[in-house]
Amino acid sequence: MAAAAPPPAPTPAATALPDPTPIGYPLFTRIRLATASDVPHIHKLIHQLANFKHLAHHCSATEASLSSTLFTSPPFQSFTVFILELSQTPFPPQLHTHSALFSPITQTITLDLPIDDPETETFKSNDKDCGFDVVVGGFVLFFPNYSTFLGKPGFYVEDLFVRECYRRKGFGKMLLSAVAAQAVKMGYGRVEWAVLDWNVNAIKFYEEMGAKVLQEWRICRLTDEALQAYANPAI
Amino acid sequence: MAAAAPPPAPTPAATALPDPTPIGYPLFTRIRLATASDVPHIHKLIHQLANFKHLAHHCSATEASLSSTLFTSPPFQSFTVFILELSQTPFPPQLHTHSALFSPITQTITLDLPIDDPETETFKSNDKDCGFDVVVGGFVLFFPNYSTFLGKPGFYVEDLFVRECYRRKGFGKMLLSAVAAQAVKMGYGRVEWAVLDWNVNAIKFYEEMGAKVLQEWRICRLTDEALQAYANPAI
Repeated sequence: MAAAAPPPAPTPAATALPDPTPIGYPLFTRIRLATASDVPHIHKLIHQLANFKHLAHHCSATEASLSSTLFTSPPFQSFTVFILELSQTPFPPQLHTHSALFSPITQTITLDLPIDDPETETFKSNDKDCGFDVVVGGFVLFFPNYSTFLGKPGFYVEDLFVRECYRRKGFGKMLLSAVAAQAVKMGYGRVEWAVLDWNVNAIKFYEEMGAKVLQEWRICRLTDEALQAYANPAI
Repeated sequence: MAAAAPPPAPTPAATALPDPTPIGYPLFTRIRLATASDVPHIHKLIHQLANFKHLAHHCSATEASLSSTLFTSPPFQSFTVFILELSQTPFPPQLHTHSALFSPITQTITLDLPIDDPETETFKSNDKDCGFDVVVGGFVLFFPNYSTFLGKPGFYVEDLFVRECYRRKGFGKMLLSAVAAQAVKMGYGRVEWAVLDWNVNAIKFYEEMGAKVLQEWRICRLTDEALQAYANPAI
């Protein structure tokens, strides 16, 4: 019946409207486990994070210090990094990025406007299975913590960072969700992290994700000379 | 000359004074790595801690949950427990409690009055090399954390607990110092833990130990149903 009906006559008003179903700009995303070969990118991202927090003077991480302390244990048993990658073309079938412990999470989003990334050369992915246009957009570093009350582990998220040109697109939520999903998969009890009390936007974002902000707890830190004073435990 | 001098005549006032150099009551202490065989004691200590914090209803740890999640990695690589033991007789030479990774720390303190421990049977140490009077008095559970800014690990202390009859004798400081000493030994950058903001006595104690309380940071926690909602990472 529909085929037999004459097509409706277009009106001048209708032809002046924008296309009601724009294709937009697809952006292909992937979250995968980082490896030692990602250290140069992780190092640059950490320093961008330190600049963002106006704490660059406190950032002494080097590629050497990261290389000697990260990726020394299997993923999830100790310090673990997820890398966010972005591409304008689909990711190839998972080859060496696939691990028995974690299958990369791919997702496609549609943008109204393409993103102009001024650092594509610096952050070009070193995954040889990928196309030339894959860039690293952010990371999350986390590790197991433990709740004695639950009698089981959880994850603590030490840092979550998305490069400036990729912000406000949901990538931070993607990275944190990937950690939470992994915690659920492993039967863990909690995912925790810290936020500055004046960062109301971050607090709102985390609360919308379902997190509670523990108002009464304060973090104590023993570091530098105050820590070195305990070199001899019998004092 | 002193031997030739006649002894001074005792005066009634002098004989009425207490002994100016009392021997006191020595208490021998040892901090050692816990093993899986310590789980029953650790479980009881965790529940005493939960009662102390009026949070017993939040404490779901069981011996089974602790056994399946603790002591699955070598000490210091993941969740690690130090046990505080107390004895009225000296500890024997270190036999199987000695580890290449950690030599038990022994220390002797002198008390004015002996401690009346109402739970000696419940907390009798299961270390076969020790005498019958060795009891477990407390524990500290900690695990590696990571500072991206330092580019190196530290330790996070999840729980520190000393049984009631052994408090205010310096044992909490001994346990925390042992963790700090281990951090220094391993070249780690920080030791961190959390404190309730209204617990002014604890804050004073930690500050006297050299710790800084980070006033601006709040802990965010994703748990229970809010965490389970992330079972599918692509949502």
